[in-house]
Amino acid sequence: MPVSRLYKLYLSPHRKYVKVLKNLLGFVPGNLLLYRLAFRHKSVAQNVKKGVKNSNERLEFLGDAVLGSVVAEVLFKLYPYEDEGFLTELRSKIVNRQNLNQLARKLGFEQLIEYDARMLGPSRQGSLLGDAFEALVGAVYLDKGYNFTRDFLINQIIKPHIDIHMLEQTETNFKSKLIEWCQRHGKDISFDVVENEVGESLKLFTVQASIEGQTLGLGKEFSKKNAEKLAAEKACEALGI
Amino acid sequence: MPVSRLYKLYLSPHRKYVKVLKNLLGFVPGNLLLYRLAFRHKSVAQNVKKGVKNSNERLEFLGDAVLGSVVAEVLFKLYPYEDEGFLTELRSKIVNRQNLNQLARKLGFEQLIEYDARMLGPSRQGSLLGDAFEALVGAVYLDKGYNFTRDFLINQIIKPHIDIHMLEQTETNFKSKLIEWCQRHGKDISFDVVENEVGESLKLFTVQASIEGQTLGLGKEFSKKNAEKLAAEKACEALGI
Repeated sequence: MPVSRLYKLYLSPHRKYVKVLKNLLGFVPGNLLLYRLAFRHKSVAQNVKKGVKNSNERLEFLGDAVLGSVVAEVLFKLYPYEDEGFLTELRSKIVNRQNLNQLARKLGFEQLIEYDARMLGPSRQGSLLGDAFEALVGAVYLDKGYNFTRDFLINQIIKPHIDIHMLEQTETNFKSKLIEWCQRHGKDISFDVVENEVGESLKLFTVQASIEGQTLGLGKEFSKKNAEKLAAEKACEALGI
Repeated sequence: MPVSRLYKLYLSPHRKYVKVLKNLLGFVPGNLLLYRLAFRHKSVAQNVKKGVKNSNERLEFLGDAVLGSVVAEVLFKLYPYEDEGFLTELRSKIVNRQNLNQLARKLGFEQLIEYDARMLGPSRQGSLLGDAFEALVGAVYLDKGYNFTRDFLINQIIKPHIDIHMLEQTETNFKSKLIEWCQRHGKDISFDVVENEVGESLKLFTVQASIEGQTLGLGKEFSKKNAEKLAAEKACEALGI
């Protein structure tokens, strides 16, 4: 064992934190400050300069990108005969907030996240964990580089904790999600094919999803079904469901 | 010069293509098939299996993710005191389709892309170049790995061709974009603060952007201005503008 690892694990004043992280992540972290930052929610962050807070949000931005790239490569290689639409959809099932929250809970992040519950509504608390997971990916990337992060994500996270083939089967069907929401709230919903803009291909379908006559999403695709799907997805986004 | 490079540049039957790529990219490519694939638009692609075409779309999916990750790191380090909202916005200005199209044109990609103009509407031709640029990033990644791709993007693409500080100044202002669109189409627009959902923080603002009374976008943020911005962005998305 190299001296620096020995020191970190057994002698350093931060050895307890190092051990917790090692148990959680499977490796000895280098720069501890990065990991502390990854677990600090903005509700307990302090201003460091010009209104910028030492919260995990910047790391979350970086980690989200690195995670997206690693998952893209995994899926690209796992499904050599699927098109980019399939890959995009499957990736978003893997990295969506709900899935990352569950993952972070399973990994035991709750014991590490610093936050102030009084500053959060009940609906916001759920995303703390997923946000911290992304921030952690950013911290690992800055601490250890891309290849290490990639191997960490594949071997410690994706293989043991994510059942990609199961996620492949579960459909995130925005159209039925929207229809269910409307039934629950007693609202009328319609999907209508509308005219294309001047100059657009005749093969293109433009569909609008409307609730009580109000257009909430517009989708343009080369099949009517996919245009409806896209319109439904945008409407779900607009409604925040 | 290693023998394999000598062979590729001077003896291989593909030496002409290798030289073109070397001039364009600044390095000698390894697996030529990947690069040919990156420049093949779906309009000239053939079915290889189960309806999957040998077009650049899968590589585009991968390259888009890798590019996003590299640009995220560049901005994270270039702007240590800006928050994740700033970083996200600036990144989307760099990697948006229009910017990537211009970049690919400047790099001379037009001579390399294979496509069938008859299969494309006039509005679709523009994005060919940007799509191929992303696919190329995917090809470089598979051919040479992340660190090489990162250095290639930073030194050959971003530093010489992208003026980040200039892009920082140009504002993508969704609110004014939406207002202009409404003026052009003679439609009324309004931004209204609406009630939060039960349990949400009192500090949170919910704003809806409505056109002719139809809600097209909903934004929730901790300042009214940012909530309006988000609502406008979603409305722009819903309208496809």
